[in-house]
Amino acid sequence: MKLLHTADWHIGRRLHGFDLTDEQQNAFDQIEQIAQAEQVDGLIIAGDVYDRRLPSEASVAMVNQMLQQLNLTDQIPLYAISGNHDSATRLATGTPWFKATHLYLHTDLSQAFTPIELTDTQLFLCPYFEPFAAQQYFNDESIQHLDQAFARVVTEMKTHFDPAKKHLLVAHFFVAGSSTTDSETNLTVGGLAAVPTDLLADFDYVALGHLHGKDALHLPNARYSGSPVKFSLSEANQHKGVWIVDTDETPVKVTFKPITPIHDVRQITSSFDDLIASADDDSINHEDYVGITLTDRQPIPNVMARLRAVFPRIVTLGRAAGFESQVRYHGETSQQIQQKSPMALLGDFYEQVAKENLTSQQEKWARAALKQANEGGDQA
Amino acid sequence: MKLLHTADWHIGRRLHGFDLTDEQQNAFDQIEQIAQAEQVDGLIIAGDVYDRRLPSEASVAMVNQMLQQLNLTDQIPLYAISGNHDSATRLATGTPWFKATHLYLHTDLSQAFTPIELTDTQLFLCPYFEPFAAQQYFNDESIQHLDQAFARVVTEMKTHFDPAKKHLLVAHFFVAGSSTTDSETNLTVGGLAAVPTDLLADFDYVALGHLHGKDALHLPNARYSGSPVKFSLSEANQHKGVWIVDTDETPVKVTFKPITPIHDVRQITSSFDDLIASADDDSINHEDYVGITLTDRQPIPNVMARLRAVFPRIVTLGRAAGFESQVRYHGETSQQIQQKSPMALLGDFYEQVAKENLTSQQEKWARAALKQANEGGDQA
Repeated sequence: MKLLHTADWHIGRRLHGFDLTDEQQNAFDQIEQIAQAEQVDGLIIAGDVYDRRLPSEASVAMVNQMLQQLNLTDQIPLYAISGNHDSATRLATGTPWFKATHLYLHTDLSQAFTPIELTDTQLFLCPYFEPFAAQQYFNDESIQHLDQAFARVVTEMKTHFDPAKKHLLVAHFFVAGSSTTDSETNLTVGGLAAVPTDLLADFDYVALGHLHGKDALHLPNARYSGSPVKFSLSEANQHKGVWIVDTDETPVKVTFKPITPIHDVRQITSSFDDLIASADDDSINHEDYVGITLTDRQPIPNVMARLRAVFPRIVTLGRAAGFESQVRYHGETSQQIQQKSPMALLGDFYEQVAKENLTSQQEKWARAALKQANEGGDQA
Repeated sequence: MKLLHTADWHIGRRLHGFDLTDEQQNAFDQIEQIAQAEQVDGLIIAGDVYDRRLPSEASVAMVNQMLQQLNLTDQIPLYAISGNHDSATRLATGTPWFKATHLYLHTDLSQAFTPIELTDTQLFLCPYFEPFAAQQYFNDESIQHLDQAFARVVTEMKTHFDPAKKHLLVAHFFVAGSSTTDSETNLTVGGLAAVPTDLLADFDYVALGHLHGKDALHLPNARYSGSPVKFSLSEANQHKGVWIVDTDETPVKVTFKPITPIHDVRQITSSFDDLIASADDDSINHEDYVGITLTDRQPIPNVMARLRAVFPRIVTLGRAAGFESQVRYHGETSQQIQQKSPMALLGDFYEQVAKENLTSQQEKWARAALKQANEGGDQA
């Protein structure tokens, strides 16, 4: 059987204030196209369908449309779980009806132990859960941490193993030793909330959600699909996409299928002048989401607005080597500066920022304002 | 065919701060029992399933469970619409899958015109909509008010009428001439948002939601079912329940089936002493939600706590004839009172409220506090 493995759609997410609806819809369209081109027998969504437990109406409408498109229109079986960003309760809405069209969406730990029986494969859908939920389910207060809980869950699953079939697990956790990015919610507190890799050993494939990079984990039988869209600058160099999992092969064969963004997320380190001059360079995609690091050290008036005229989707702006120290620039000591008159200080400042002297009219306005401020001060 | 008509469940609603979960679950259980006892062919929910557009997780879990119970466990066809309290978008979750088990839940005006075809009846499910939605659907800017919008909607429905069948409409609106209670959201602004009764004339039965009393409207072919639970003191004298609609008869026959609350909502007018004395009277249900109107005119110390010891679910507390004027009680003019010392005023007040004089210790404390307050005032 061929299954498509994706996760971490995070519908409703924004990137430094920028709406990602179009990116997420575009990534979804590509996932649908890959599923059709590969003629997959099912599509796995390993949690975090939504970005928030309380999604907006727009996000709800989007997810409803996506699931309907895949399952009812394209008639692709769906195997999904809730992640730590989802509300299990809200996501459970409608699920008792979904099974009829092979949409399995597990949101409660109790659902993890009955596998979906495919021709050659048993598929265990284990939603994200807190150790407390396992404590309650197993009625065992000795279960305190995720590693203990997960060990019990796997032991219980194995009692349902059919030796004639392959065993796939869909789960949404931080697996020990994985590498993270800035866009994931940290689930590990002192290493207690990590799943040890040896607990995954008995599965032919573990389709993971939670971490946003496809290379976060290097195990022969377990993968994070990563998110279909870049959610932070720390993901700038990642390649987004989905895994095609072929259970006909032993070991299970996985192939990566890339997703191309409308607008990429990139880090740029350059001088201000070069960035402005690049406006006419058609080889540069100015519409990308960019984190800009300026190599300049001097102050640049109105820098964000001028850069946004060339790069409309700036998500961060920083300096490679900090600002020049303006005190040292003039070779003055702080004592010398303290002795200067307010008008002299204003003149110095204006010259540094604007690269020109105050005009006589500006000087006149400044003196008048200063006089007024001083008089106001005397009266107080 | 026999259909059960209910509406306005308002799951998540509270009564003056009291949680109504148990009442709502109990009313639901009775609705289910009536449906089974009457062997109905379907159950109509005429809008306002939820109390809020953004229901809590607990409310979502409750509604999910109720719909599952009726439709999947009891296998009762459901014919439902969204009301003005529901989020049409959120309520639409799962609906494309629900049809397979005859759960029809219409949330968009565009769904109103294709009737559900029953053996002898066409059922038009018209969700609550704003005139703007009709303006958009019909692409006609002349539609400004609900009466215009609803006229167009009915005209469009009639093009789908099968003359061999009866025609039922499920809708959620204020129908002109209906009587209201305090617990409904007012939809009428200058009468513009009311549906004129003549627009309902072509239907054999109109199953209405929105108003919370079953007797809100007196038309031969249209009924509000009312809410299954009392949501305000203004509903104290209402009888809650559901309608059983029999389409085999001409005209359609409707029968009321009552729902009994766990705790009723009642208005009590009585003296404080009689209420306290009633504690041992088993003929009085002290657990009811009560709005108490005291016939006493004098101040009663700690009145709410003392009454709550007998009636734990007091929702409002008022006075039938106001308070006695304490000024007139002593026969003093306000001028006389102004001339009294603070200690004399305090003594009078304490005597009126506590029905006894200040003890010498209390008087000592009061003098000390007064002295301190006066000295504090001098220093300021």
